[in-house]
Amino acid sequence: MSLTPFFTPTGVAIVGASSNPTKLGFSLANNLLQSGYTGAVHFVNPSGGTLLERPLYPTLAEVPDPVDLAVLLIPAPAIPHALVECGQRGIRAVILASGGFRETGPEGAALEEETVRVARAHGIRLIGPNCIGLLDTHLPLDTTFLPPPGPTPGDVAFISHSGAICAAVIDWARGQGFGLSRLVSLGNQADVTETDVLAPVAADPYTRVLTLYLEGISDGQRFVEEASKVTRQKPVIALKVGRFKSGQQAVASHTGALAGQETAYNAAFRRAGVIRADTSEEMFDWARALAWCPPPRGRRVAVLTNAGGPGVTAADALEMHGLELAPLAPATVAALQTFLPSAASFHNPVDMLASASPEHYARSLRALLNDPHVDSVMVILPPPPMYTAGGVARAMIPIIQSAKKPVVIAVMGERMIQEAVEYFRAAHVPEYRFPERAAGALNVLTRRAETLAREVESPLHRADVSPDKVAAALAPFVVGASAPQKGTEVPTTNGRFLPQDTALQILAAYGIPTLGLELARDADEAVAIAARMGFPVALKVASPDIPHKSDVGGVLLDVRDQESVRAGFASVIEAAKRAQADAVIEGVHLQRMVSAGQEVITGTVRDAQFGPLVMFGSGGVEVEGLKDVAFALAPATRGEIEEMLEKTWAGRKLRGFRSLPPADREAVIEVLTRLGQLAADFPPVGGDGDQSVKGVAGGGGGVGCEGEGREVDKVDR
Amino acid sequence: MSLTPFFTPTGVAIVGASSNPTKLGFSLANNLLQSGYTGAVHFVNPSGGTLLERPLYPTLAEVPDPVDLAVLLIPAPAIPHALVECGQRGIRAVILASGGFRETGPEGAALEEETVRVARAHGIRLIGPNCIGLLDTHLPLDTTFLPPPGPTPGDVAFISHSGAICAAVIDWARGQGFGLSRLVSLGNQADVTETDVLAPVAADPYTRVLTLYLEGISDGQRFVEEASKVTRQKPVIALKVGRFKSGQQAVASHTGALAGQETAYNAAFRRAGVIRADTSEEMFDWARALAWCPPPRGRRVAVLTNAGGPGVTAADALEMHGLELAPLAPATVAALQTFLPSAASFHNPVDMLASASPEHYARSLRALLNDPHVDSVMVILPPPPMYTAGGVARAMIPIIQSAKKPVVIAVMGERMIQEAVEYFRAAHVPEYRFPERAAGALNVLTRRAETLAREVESPLHRADVSPDKVAAALAPFVVGASAPQKGTEVPTTNGRFLPQDTALQILAAYGIPTLGLELARDADEAVAIAARMGFPVALKVASPDIPHKSDVGGVLLDVRDQESVRAGFASVIEAAKRAQADAVIEGVHLQRMVSAGQEVITGTVRDAQFGPLVMFGSGGVEVEGLKDVAFALAPATRGEIEEMLEKTWAGRKLRGFRSLPPADREAVIEVLTRLGQLAADFPPVGGDGDQSVKGVAGGGGGVGCEGEGREVDKVDR
Repeated sequence: MSLTPFFTPTGVAIVGASSNPTKLGFSLANNLLQSGYTGAVHFVNPSGGTLLERPLYPTLAEVPDPVDLAVLLIPAPAIPHALVECGQRGIRAVILASGGFRETGPEGAALEEETVRVARAHGIRLIGPNCIGLLDTHLPLDTTFLPPPGPTPGDVAFISHSGAICAAVIDWARGQGFGLSRLVSLGNQADVTETDVLAPVAADPYTRVLTLYLEGISDGQRFVEEASKVTRQKPVIALKVGRFKSGQQAVASHTGALAGQETAYNAAFRRAGVIRADTSEEMFDWARALAWCPPPRGRRVAVLTNAGGPGVTAADALEMHGLELAPLAPATVAALQTFLPSAASFHNPVDMLASASPEHYARSLRALLNDPHVDSVMVILPPPPMYTAGGVARAMIPIIQSAKKPVVIAVMGERMIQEAVEYFRAAHVPEYRFPERAAGALNVLTRRAETLAREVESPLHRADVSPDKVAAALAPFVVGASAPQKGTEVPTTNGRFLPQDTALQILAAYGIPTLGLELARDADEAVAIAARMGFPVALKVASPDIPHKSDVGGVLLDVRDQESVRAGFASVIEAAKRAQADAVIEGVHLQRMVSAGQEVITGTVRDAQFGPLVMFGSGGVEVEGLKDVAFALAPATRGEIEEMLEKTWAGRKLRGFRSLPPADREAVIEVLTRLGQLAADFPPVGGDGDQSVKGVAGGGGGVGCEGEGREVDKVDR
Repeated sequence: MSLTPFFTPTGVAIVGASSNPTKLGFSLANNLLQSGYTGAVHFVNPSGGTLLERPLYPTLAEVPDPVDLAVLLIPAPAIPHALVECGQRGIRAVILASGGFRETGPEGAALEEETVRVARAHGIRLIGPNCIGLLDTHLPLDTTFLPPPGPTPGDVAFISHSGAICAAVIDWARGQGFGLSRLVSLGNQADVTETDVLAPVAADPYTRVLTLYLEGISDGQRFVEEASKVTRQKPVIALKVGRFKSGQQAVASHTGALAGQETAYNAAFRRAGVIRADTSEEMFDWARALAWCPPPRGRRVAVLTNAGGPGVTAADALEMHGLELAPLAPATVAALQTFLPSAASFHNPVDMLASASPEHYARSLRALLNDPHVDSVMVILPPPPMYTAGGVARAMIPIIQSAKKPVVIAVMGERMIQEAVEYFRAAHVPEYRFPERAAGALNVLTRRAETLAREVESPLHRADVSPDKVAAALAPFVVGASAPQKGTEVPTTNGRFLPQDTALQILAAYGIPTLGLELARDADEAVAIAARMGFPVALKVASPDIPHKSDVGGVLLDVRDQESVRAGFASVIEAAKRAQADAVIEGVHLQRMVSAGQEVITGTVRDAQFGPLVMFGSGGVEVEGLKDVAFALAPATRGEIEEMLEKTWAGRKLRGFRSLPPADREAVIEVLTRLGQLAADFPPVGGDGDQSVKGVAGGGGGVGCEGEGREVDKVDR
């Protein structure tokens, strides 16, 4: 059902409008009228009478046409019945401003379910409950009960899971000198979610940037899909809070613990092209720059200053963000030398000295913008000793407005630079109090430009895989479902790990190379197998009950002769029994040792919100100790896999490093490609936290199984 | 010579005072009079006449008593002569506000040297040149030429290498609602440096916190000494800029490249108890909290909010800083339940809901402060829907002021919370616009309290070392100096590395255990040595010209039999010759392989500013690839060594990790202790960048030499 009536209603009814000015029902009615909304406005209150010179209709049924959006601000228990009335009156879009639902406990949750049921029955879409509502400064429309004034009209849209933050953001935005286009407070999201409103908000021609305050995402895969479309058109910045909660949930597998929700959010935002901010200030610092600046063509920044100190600070901050100080063209230096004092610094940062006039600022800025080596400019403006900062601003603004390159300003100070700040804000030039924050904004502009310049990538896909074989191998281990098939959600393997040989079969079916694995039931058999394989070999206790074999002393590496194999067979079984007396022990697995190459870990994990992720990182104890791991949505794109390799030391050193020779990087990429495809095709592979098929997750280019004999998981050169 | 006249002058002469209001010489004179300075004020200008109703003396000689401080704002070339006049007039403290010195090039640098020479000859101390001067809001005194108004009186002192930033900071501080006590702009530091003014500024009773804007420190060791004394009394926060420059200087050794200047600054700040800020905003965010709040007794924070969203943000930010959400005592929960609505959240963060009144805020805050599990409180105050933020502030302030625990406020918004902000500022309660910044301030308060609670530590010292043996071993390799002795600065070893056997002798002399090393001149000798040592062994080409032997294929590890030793002897020599035809090759060194234990790297490096540093980290290629290293000033304290181990994965895993057994952690600490002592006793050990004695730097508990055969550098269990 369409969300159109929420964003462009022809008539709005406020149910619970109140003539008592101390009630939120009065504020709501008053805000809607004050907003300048040009459609029909109707108030409903069983008391009847009038409110703000308009009739108070006792019931919705009496409200005249047109009306296609209702805002309900009545006690929670009355909501389901009111929805029935909305349905009967033909209203298909309702904002539930009232609280008293899921946020208050089980009773409220039941009422919320009932509310949704009634809404569905009448084909009604709901925003809320427990929300501030919706606001559009250009339509205009204000369905909130917030104390006035509402936000200044602008080009930044704000979509929020938190209502309380909306009032603060509106007020703070006014103080910071930027306006909002649309604001949507989603409350409990009983029906409409952040994902639903992305496209409608982005469709608003006044909105240039979308900002999201997220406490969680319920349908992660749909979010990625929707956000991916939106971010091709307009930048989306997200502040995701509640980051540390996930760390408290213990999960069975290493990979799962490493992933956590945050990793999944990062992988999802990467895929969707969403920019993630760490703080509220960052989000809006960046939003202003993205809304007002053209995209830079590269990372080379020129800094223009009238003092050395802040110039150094700016250079530091730019480098910290991975930006570069542009080397100036000789023609630029020559141009600057014609009018700046000879003691000025003509290298980047260009220091015009304290005597710099508004004209110096303007001419220098023009020269820097004309330099083909310069992609963007940061101007530093402390209170000039001999001139006013406002004069400097006025001189520069026409140049900035006609430039095709971004210019950001660090206006340093407070009251002495207030006039300059106001000129810049009115001209939509992003200004910050400190060079560090201006550098952050330039960095985001650059990243956004780079994202847009990238080709749209598709997840990698290999055709030579055998889903049928995987389905057959998995079938005996799946509980509560028929035989798994490609793409089927298989809920559980009852918390058990797959036996190692099954795991290897599954990997083989997707073309993922593994070292051979053979089961020896007794010591003689072990010796015979080892002789056939060739020494050295690894011994690992074979038990479906012991997932982390090395933790119990169930792994012996680098076993070099027959005698040691015989002794080792006994010792790993004994160790396993000592550690876990009730474990079923089938014997000992033997694997060939690989000595050359680099050790890495690859794996998959299933996130509750975003589905399968593929993982890459340092193997051995380092994977947990160092957290040298990276994740991508599965199946991954080539770009995502390349980024995983660049982000991790394990990946960077595949190219070789000093005396370490390069390894077969493409083999790693191939394994990550196929592993991602496997995890996406078969949801139980990779698991979802504490119940999962873990046996397949681990391993390197030549692959063993997670938690086992890491030394053999090496990538052959 | 004393700096007293700078900070408490009895009379000030301004040389270059001008009656032309467009000149800085007028601003300077006017600022001094306007500042309310109660001592004598004299103006000097050869033109004579009057200025601001005071005589303009044509020469300094004519200025009457008392006068003990002169501010010179005259053309640079006239400065030396003016200093002679100051000397003749008995003035021993001079602020050189004029520019035109070192900052303009070689001619200016020569003039600066001449200036210092003249000053020394007359026993004069100089601040500047090229500086803004000095300002004390309580004395009061203002010797700057900055446009008015000057800073509000307050309790934060600001010492700056940059003059331009001073004007911005004064103005910004006023806007942020905090005052300054003293401001010192140091300019070119021809004489007086940041280190010189630390103690005098800290001695000011009005100063509660010192903030430093540093572009570099010339005498690092004296800075550490002085700052260490000051920080026991008052907190010092430093913003050190110019961070990335050092990265561009290529240095010969790994350790040197890893250290860089920044590492040395961090190690020095750690030793001195100086808090390092990354941005200007951080520095002053923290300064306000440190100036106004009592120290917390621990890391447990209570969050009080009227909305869930910002509460989650706060919890995230606190955890990100390593702080904890305090578990509330049952009595606290019970107290809150007596007056908060039942739907409120009584767990930490305490969410009073949107209806929270000023009284709710006040009573809840009191309850949280009374909770023995709570060490500090963060209050979150978005514009309350039903009350004014100002009312909430008024209700809480008396409670905060009488509390013995720190309270910081996140007042969210801008104009609607302005009244609250002003109340908080007037009451010296630190307030921030966002929970993230408030959390940062709480973190610094906690760290400061922890630093103060720590015993003052002394660097570790071992008596059973033999400096004489080191001196003897080093003697042949030192160029341009007599035989080195303990504590002697030995300038250079001419860019050469010490031979490995010399390095081992030096380590042995300081009780640092090493693996045996024997030189084989031919293959037969190598076989014989290996047989005596026991297999496996490592072979390393012995050449004074090849410091990084594994890079040229000059290292063979894990050589397991006589035949392989023979073949290996030839191959490493051949590889070394191929790589470096002109290298002198003495033969091959043999070392026993250690297979058990954990590999680590230890080392030393000499920093130009701060002297010797000791290093610890992951060995192998990881040391450079992962940058898993930490540094401390040498010799290090026990606490510093413990922190190096905690900061690095190499150090953390010494305690054991999953299947990795614990290693001998104390042995590592002992090596770091002795290595630091060695580096401090013999400056050339550890080198100073590109010319140094590198051979001693590397190695683990059982030690080889840097860049060589890392696999043998293991710590025995």
